[in-house]
Amino acid sequence: MSKVPYKIYLEESEMPKQWFNVRAAMKEKPEPFINPGTMEPCTADDLRPVFCDALIEQELNNDDRYIEIPQGIQDFYKMYRPSPVTRAYNLERILDTPAEIYYKFEGNNTSGSHKLNSAAAQVYYAKEQGLTSLTTETGAGQWGTALAMACAFYGIDLTVYMVKVSAQQKPYRKAVIETYGGKVIPSPSDTTEVGKKILAENPNTGGSLGCAISEAMEVALKTDNCRYVLGSVLNHVILHQSIIGQELKTALEKYDVEPDIIIGCAGGGSNLGGLISPYMADKIEGKNNIQFIAVEPASCPSLTRGKYALDFGDTGKTTPLMRMYTLGSGFIPSPNHAGGLRYHGMSPIVSKLYHDGYMEARAVEQNKIFEAATTFARCEGTLPAPESSHAIRVAMDEALKCKETGEKKTIVFGLTGTGYFDMSAYMSYMDGSMTDFIPTDEDLEKGFASLPVKE
Amino acid sequence: MSKVPYKIYLEESEMPKQWFNVRAAMKEKPEPFINPGTMEPCTADDLRPVFCDALIEQELNNDDRYIEIPQGIQDFYKMYRPSPVTRAYNLERILDTPAEIYYKFEGNNTSGSHKLNSAAAQVYYAKEQGLTSLTTETGAGQWGTALAMACAFYGIDLTVYMVKVSAQQKPYRKAVIETYGGKVIPSPSDTTEVGKKILAENPNTGGSLGCAISEAMEVALKTDNCRYVLGSVLNHVILHQSIIGQELKTALEKYDVEPDIIIGCAGGGSNLGGLISPYMADKIEGKNNIQFIAVEPASCPSLTRGKYALDFGDTGKTTPLMRMYTLGSGFIPSPNHAGGLRYHGMSPIVSKLYHDGYMEARAVEQNKIFEAATTFARCEGTLPAPESSHAIRVAMDEALKCKETGEKKTIVFGLTGTGYFDMSAYMSYMDGSMTDFIPTDEDLEKGFASLPVKE
Repeated sequence: MSKVPYKIYLEESEMPKQWFNVRAAMKEKPEPFINPGTMEPCTADDLRPVFCDALIEQELNNDDRYIEIPQGIQDFYKMYRPSPVTRAYNLERILDTPAEIYYKFEGNNTSGSHKLNSAAAQVYYAKEQGLTSLTTETGAGQWGTALAMACAFYGIDLTVYMVKVSAQQKPYRKAVIETYGGKVIPSPSDTTEVGKKILAENPNTGGSLGCAISEAMEVALKTDNCRYVLGSVLNHVILHQSIIGQELKTALEKYDVEPDIIIGCAGGGSNLGGLISPYMADKIEGKNNIQFIAVEPASCPSLTRGKYALDFGDTGKTTPLMRMYTLGSGFIPSPNHAGGLRYHGMSPIVSKLYHDGYMEARAVEQNKIFEAATTFARCEGTLPAPESSHAIRVAMDEALKCKETGEKKTIVFGLTGTGYFDMSAYMSYMDGSMTDFIPTDEDLEKGFASLPVKE
Repeated sequence: MSKVPYKIYLEESEMPKQWFNVRAAMKEKPEPFINPGTMEPCTADDLRPVFCDALIEQELNNDDRYIEIPQGIQDFYKMYRPSPVTRAYNLERILDTPAEIYYKFEGNNTSGSHKLNSAAAQVYYAKEQGLTSLTTETGAGQWGTALAMACAFYGIDLTVYMVKVSAQQKPYRKAVIETYGGKVIPSPSDTTEVGKKILAENPNTGGSLGCAISEAMEVALKTDNCRYVLGSVLNHVILHQSIIGQELKTALEKYDVEPDIIIGCAGGGSNLGGLISPYMADKIEGKNNIQFIAVEPASCPSLTRGKYALDFGDTGKTTPLMRMYTLGSGFIPSPNHAGGLRYHGMSPIVSKLYHDGYMEARAVEQNKIFEAATTFARCEGTLPAPESSHAIRVAMDEALKCKETGEKKTIVFGLTGTGYFDMSAYMSYMDGSMTDFIPTDEDLEKGFASLPVKE
């Protein structure tokens, strides 16, 4: 038995009091938001009608490496953090690998994922600013749940536009959001102009994150003392999620564990960005040579098959433009795609790091994901979310490579959440009815045609 | 801010290596099982066709205060334990009470409850004995999930008879069991003689735990190298669940916290029995004066309205007789009763402690339970199981009494699990359609009529 315990929990006194802003370490910064009207960089004032002031400040801050976590957010974090770093002794045994495998598990809270880390922060700042309500979108439902929990705690009204196909597949996820007092509207809906327009063009659409974002933003702009909040992609979300990486590094350093590979699933990039932030800064500064791997679904392959281009964040083309890896805001993933990671784009921070060669990316098909998920569940106990299982799949692949080569690498991955609300997907995997949808080049071209700037 | 952190986690090195056998401290022991044919106490040989040998030994052991936890079970426990003791600072604030409230949270594992503590032990011993398959019953589904997880881990086949109404209400719970490789059969079924008989008498029954037990036992007796395992009620289950109380006491003593009140929900009694075991031994020996409170649903009130009598453990009347508080094995709770705690009887250990005046009991209606559950979810984050919320309700009631009297009591309760699979019950609470079913005296008389011995 190694001296490393199965689970490493930090003491409350060891918990990070600062977020880590990876942009401060980046030699080239991500491009600023671009105002699509003027094609000039957005100012704070441009963003103020949509976002909270404190979040805009964080969004535009490329300089401060550490940003204090207010006490009111630290107190929220203490309800469900620190999250454990687990040594996957049982998975290592099943794979018969010389590799050491660790995972940082973010699912031990009712939202079932890491999304609560940014929800707490965003709602706290909204309350501080005197706002009374928030709007947002949710896909698989983790973000909507997380935000409802934070809104219940701090006392703010919430309306959630939930991707219609998810709302249908996950009625209980909707019920959890409602238990916390959130109002859920399946998207596209007839409650907004953009929703009505999308429904008129495509009455049978299952919806998309991009479309739900447009609806939520429209309502925020129309409503007094209301703002829009987003659970991924943006710089300030990656900042909040750096709590994962900060805890991870502190925990591993207690046991002198140095990762060779860090793996995270990537949809909008918030988990991955937060997980790797402090380690990535060290890599940029030549202090480590870690292999970072982003894993995305083959059905929505923004990093591996997308373009690094200026694009809208939403289907309705109402957001500022961001330079990111994108399939085009018109791309709608196949409705048979289980779970999250359905966003057409990717965090500008993660996109820039990938573009500059600091990390790699892999796309995996969903049957292979669920095979890994089931193996993991049976030997490590925890039933993983489909999203998280992308990282499990590649961690297993890398551990099996070590078995072939005899290398004793240290593999770390982010286990972002649990799969309790994804059982219909597990059922279709078990009964053999799950299909692997991979977009053709022609499918992708349709998405790229929606890009606003031809470069 | 008090010096007690929000969450107390034990280090792996501080985790208990022994279970605590409360019977060793009891001045009068629970009565032994009675063979209904001879009306003599059951011997180990009487029990051997149904139960694993090691578990029979534990079942009959009234003498050893500490029983070693085998390394193979300790290793399983390390996957999801220690469970945190949480100071409910936010609940205290919302209630504006001078009381200090703590809860021991057992829901941070995929089974969603404390049931895994005994499942791990029972499957480990089955494997050690060379058995190849197990049968069991499950009501709300936590026990079936826990057992499937343990069977997947140790490599044993599993058939779960799931109370039909639960299987219908919770299809995803069934899917989780199947993901871990367990076979689920809604009960009553036509796969057993007892199931066929019950269906013939009452074709529309939603089933009951007692009936599912009969079916599972019948299959175990008919199948080679197969045994039956039970998730509650029995002495050895309470023994395994003492890991909860052992960890609780170690954690609270680190911060010099001495409980005035300890509260647990009570269905079959396993959580409650395990939670209180070491503290109860001290009370029996005059070392503390803690108020222990068992909380049960008003719809299935075995302690508060049942009889302390010899009864069968199952509807089919195939088990040995146990002296316990019971509503009669013929009692079937209303199908509109959300969640677990549906068993007609109560652990003989808990029954004896209650009968001898060491603890009290309260019965609570389900709308009041869900009101407490929703309040708790919104301020403490975690969405509680309906079962666990019985304990929350009484903890809140006691804390509110302290607010009136100004007393600064220390209240500890067991939060046995999460409510992710109980959303249809939450939905009916939220939309006002939840009804409070309280059996009439006439209803109870029908159950008592099934008691096998008139005393």
